[in-house]
Amino acid sequence: MAQPVQAVIRIDTDSVTPAYRQIADSIRTLLVNGVLHPGDLLPPVRQLAIDLAVHFNTVAEAYRRLAEEGWLDLKRRRGAQVIARATPLTAPPESELKFLQRLRELVAATRAEGLPLETIASSLHSIAEGLPCS
Amino acid sequence: MAQPVQAVIRIDTDSVTPAYRQIADSIRTLLVNGVLHPGDLLPPVRQLAIDLAVHFNTVAEAYRRLAEEGWLDLKRRRGAQVIARATPLTAPPESELKFLQRLRELVAATRAEGLPLETIASSLHSIAEGLPCS
Repeated sequence: MAQPVQAVIRIDTDSVTPAYRQIADSIRTLLVNGVLHPGDLLPPVRQLAIDLAVHFNTVAEAYRRLAEEGWLDLKRRRGAQVIARATPLTAPPESELKFLQRLRELVAATRAEGLPLETIASSLHSIAEGLPCS
Repeated sequence: MAQPVQAVIRIDTDSVTPAYRQIADSIRTLLVNGVLHPGDLLPPVRQLAIDLAVHFNTVAEAYRRLAEEGWLDLKRRRGAQVIARATPLTAPPESELKFLQRLRELVAATRAEGLPLETIASSLHSIAEGLPCS
């Protein structure tokens, strides 16, 4: 990986999203985007906790959630290792509707903050165009 | 409003997002999109709690959060009334970066569920094109 995991995780202490989930969300994004590869080792729980200034249980919980999702192999001594995780061949049937609903909610919350519509629209288009579609 | 609020709120009991926040997110989306207008009355807390099969404190907390954001006027007897809320003229400086980060995380989580990239891309484009940009 190009830079250490802890350099790209930002914890927003004002957020209502718990810190363990913010950490898991950030690491999942690195995994899905291929920044982290099978075989890569994540920093030990206590090291990452120090770097992010959170309790080590917070990092441990994030690693546990990602292990449950099939991304990590948790080893007592060596910390957490990225494993090859097969993407499900078919998404759950409600997946598309849930994605649309969460997108609409995220857009609404961002509009309420005052971000201009044009900026929101161009962000959505640019994320879509950055996807590795065939 | 075209249909009662309770008809469009879905609570995902499997979600890690607390129910009060799911309710607030849904109602905020209706507010931002102009489905709910200033002067409209929301259902009384206890009524909505019964309809959604949640504790009334859960609905009360959702209403409280929306009142703090400037969307609702909470009245002891009449329940909650939508008030005219000025959109901030300038978004907080970190707003665009936070929006992009949350979009990337949402897309990554959805890819991990197996939703095809093409579906994700077309959802992003369609939400962007549905925005009332000038």
